[in-house]
Amino acid sequence: MTSFYLTQSLHRTIQQKPGGLATSFQGRRQTWTQFGDRVARLASVLKELGVGTGDRVAMMALNSDRYLEYYYATWWAGAVVNPVNSRWSAAEVAYSLDDCETRILIVDDAYAGVVESLRAQTRVPLTVLYWGNGETPAGMRDTEALIAAAAPATDAMRSGDDLAGIFYTGGTTGFPKGVMLTHLNLASNAISNVAERIVMPDGVTLFAAPMFHLANGAAMLASMNLGNATVFVPSFTPTGVLELIQNEGASQMLLVPTMIQMLVDHPDLKKYDTTSLRHVLYGASVISEGVMKRALEAFPNAGFTQAYGMTELSPCATILPAWYHTNEGQKAGKMRSGGRATFTTEVRIVDPEDREVARGTVGEVCVRGPGVMAGYWNKPELTEAALRGGWMHTGDAAYMDADGFVFVVDRVKDMIITGGENVYSAEVENAVGRHPAVAACAVIGIPSERWGESVHAVIVLKPGQTTDADAIMAHCKTLIAGYKCPRSVAFVDALPLSGAGKILKTKLREPHWAGHQRNVA
Amino acid sequence: MTSFYLTQSLHRTIQQKPGGLATSFQGRRQTWTQFGDRVARLASVLKELGVGTGDRVAMMALNSDRYLEYYYATWWAGAVVNPVNSRWSAAEVAYSLDDCETRILIVDDAYAGVVESLRAQTRVPLTVLYWGNGETPAGMRDTEALIAAAAPATDAMRSGDDLAGIFYTGGTTGFPKGVMLTHLNLASNAISNVAERIVMPDGVTLFAAPMFHLANGAAMLASMNLGNATVFVPSFTPTGVLELIQNEGASQMLLVPTMIQMLVDHPDLKKYDTTSLRHVLYGASVISEGVMKRALEAFPNAGFTQAYGMTELSPCATILPAWYHTNEGQKAGKMRSGGRATFTTEVRIVDPEDREVARGTVGEVCVRGPGVMAGYWNKPELTEAALRGGWMHTGDAAYMDADGFVFVVDRVKDMIITGGENVYSAEVENAVGRHPAVAACAVIGIPSERWGESVHAVIVLKPGQTTDADAIMAHCKTLIAGYKCPRSVAFVDALPLSGAGKILKTKLREPHWAGHQRNVA
Repeated sequence: MTSFYLTQSLHRTIQQKPGGLATSFQGRRQTWTQFGDRVARLASVLKELGVGTGDRVAMMALNSDRYLEYYYATWWAGAVVNPVNSRWSAAEVAYSLDDCETRILIVDDAYAGVVESLRAQTRVPLTVLYWGNGETPAGMRDTEALIAAAAPATDAMRSGDDLAGIFYTGGTTGFPKGVMLTHLNLASNAISNVAERIVMPDGVTLFAAPMFHLANGAAMLASMNLGNATVFVPSFTPTGVLELIQNEGASQMLLVPTMIQMLVDHPDLKKYDTTSLRHVLYGASVISEGVMKRALEAFPNAGFTQAYGMTELSPCATILPAWYHTNEGQKAGKMRSGGRATFTTEVRIVDPEDREVARGTVGEVCVRGPGVMAGYWNKPELTEAALRGGWMHTGDAAYMDADGFVFVVDRVKDMIITGGENVYSAEVENAVGRHPAVAACAVIGIPSERWGESVHAVIVLKPGQTTDADAIMAHCKTLIAGYKCPRSVAFVDALPLSGAGKILKTKLREPHWAGHQRNVA
Repeated sequence: MTSFYLTQSLHRTIQQKPGGLATSFQGRRQTWTQFGDRVARLASVLKELGVGTGDRVAMMALNSDRYLEYYYATWWAGAVVNPVNSRWSAAEVAYSLDDCETRILIVDDAYAGVVESLRAQTRVPLTVLYWGNGETPAGMRDTEALIAAAAPATDAMRSGDDLAGIFYTGGTTGFPKGVMLTHLNLASNAISNVAERIVMPDGVTLFAAPMFHLANGAAMLASMNLGNATVFVPSFTPTGVLELIQNEGASQMLLVPTMIQMLVDHPDLKKYDTTSLRHVLYGASVISEGVMKRALEAFPNAGFTQAYGMTELSPCATILPAWYHTNEGQKAGKMRSGGRATFTTEVRIVDPEDREVARGTVGEVCVRGPGVMAGYWNKPELTEAALRGGWMHTGDAAYMDADGFVFVVDRVKDMIITGGENVYSAEVENAVGRHPAVAACAVIGIPSERWGESVHAVIVLKPGQTTDADAIMAHCKTLIAGYKCPRSVAFVDALPLSGAGKILKTKLREPHWAGHQRNVA
């Protein structure tokens, strides 16, 4: 029996839109027939280089049409993608490659320079494919030459519970873990996301967030299901995105809220014709009402949809549809939630003993369904703990309202326990963020002899604005209970962000917790 | 790992719309919480009656809220549905029950009377549950009393490749075959159908076609994914449907084209308020331009979507979206096609050696994907033949155009071979149907000493109209090649229809072919 297979959408699009535009990148344009041909040839190259069924193939590169070819060629060859988080240190990347015994690494011009350092740190010998626009460096293979010389392979037709990808996560929380996702995991989530309309039919999809990350991957797989044309910015910049909207008629993209904020606050925004933009999917965190208001004004033709999820969920678990972001829909009061369980997930909120809690009570978000990962690579104990009872335990603290909307309040382990009270940093961040001088902030717990932990705010001010800790604390006291207000404040130029745009609270905590032991759930 | 499971949508809807309307039938109304409670109690009843994991449970009934409860209670109990085609003879039904060793049969008031005859013909002893509104007949159990006394069961959580249903088909073509469909088969098709918008969100779904058939099943499972309220007509009548649209605000339903025709031609149509009707899904055959025109006029708020498929495909393979049925969209010239491969299917057209044919060439429709059946119950040779090479061979003859649209021209075995030429009955039927006096027609091949087969038309005239065979033949010669025109014509009062509303050509052929051998592919 045939189950889900990730190459199906490509077969179908080649059949239905053979001459339609598949990709456009920096002047290179190709049809779906041409794209399919290059995928089948690159698959052949991989097999000739010894990639067997189920073997891992890594890519470390900025966004481009070739990144899309890499995903589909790897699956076409029957192999498993291992997309490299290029924001990690060489030591972290080397660890992730070795951990799952990846022997093939594809690099572009941006990352060819780190190959030497990676080779020095990996145990498993690497065959490196150079896929750039210059001369092939010594010790690497010329990918374009290999593709040109290859005969197209036939689709290996891996499917169902066959492994499709290992996605390393954990940059924000410790040593990387390889999340094993099957064809069923990823393809079931993709079709559910199409049903949820996280990507719209008949559009041009812009890849602006990093293609190594599954947040963008959700948009990519949904877009491939729809057979949309795709365009790419190598790495997010507001003007890079605005130019592609204007010049390529890009109609939709995935962004994280910080990217949306950078876009709508960009001084040149009005110089661009952005009327083609119809839809923005965002994730990783909720969006503030202020940014949402500016975004609706900046892009009046666009709807905004939020997705909540994680790599382990392939990745989407809940969706907040565009309607709830409109001026009318905001009256429903759901905009600060991540939405409701998607068509392929069940979500429940549990206490530490895995009992479902009452609506409105904070607990841990658990998810069940075909998108839940097969497990962590080579980590059976971690897998068993995360998937106990058949539910993925996300580590996110949230409550559910009467209509099933999930309001994520924190990471379970980011919750601050101060004087015996639970404080959710998100609530404090909302309060701090409403101060007119504040551009961004993060709230963490820091060691306190008296309270166990005390609430600490790290703040980035808006350009030209000034304020002080006392003013911030006084402001917060008008909005939230006294014990939730920051007891200390630090002003910084920027917050440390992960590849997915999440604030790295671990980094913020490090200087405070050196020499202390933090007890986390 | 958890794969797809058919009870997931029910869990989700109870969570998201606990007080929302689940079903309304003849004055009985219940919320999703109440519906879920009855499902869990009926599951408990089944288990107490000895239904084990994977055992079959049959129901023989007209449409009602209880039919929906039966489907979900059977799955909740970990068992397998075997919905009985109530239009079959008692002998055929008895065969299908025995074939897969069904021991539990649920009947309503309409079919309680055939139980004695069934029991006389089945080898396997039947426990019969009476689920009607009268006194429980002797020898049967009182289903409502059992439900009232039962404690709710917990969901057995069958999923993925676990068997979910055995659907008997073959009424039109010979002895019944039990099509085995898994949770993955049915649930993957359902989510794809939601993505294709065969059923719309936030609506009231009307079940007008028989609930034992998977054509209605496609609408049912998509509707359950969306958590729509559901209303029911026991058995299709135009006024029954019109009343529910008016009184319950029904917004969508599945019909077959003959039902659409009966609706739009009904003399009382204009007496009903049908403004709530927003969407009609139809299948089993294409719709004539004349009927489509009248339907668009009759229901100006409604879109029409066609689905092509079969039970073995869970059931949808291609979809023709609503836009192609609009006055604007009809200019694309796709309205006589069944549409394109859905999000979970691949479709190709092959010659008798399973080689893909060129676009525009007629061959057999083959389908691959997670919706393709596990096989025919207890028929390994038939299964192997139907699924050879990993593709379901549908027996339908079709061609595909340059954009991937599939135009079904005939059943492979209904193709008429006359004087060495292939004649597709659908093409002849279209020509005959354009005669102003013709209400409906079917074209078959009948034995001919000279031509092998000759083209024969069976015609139902519109009320008050008259014409003759010569006029029909002359009319056809103005539209199609001479060898395709009927060489004989019969006028009848009505055409024999299957439970799914398909014309039973076997029945039409029988009198002509008695004593002859017909060679079919």
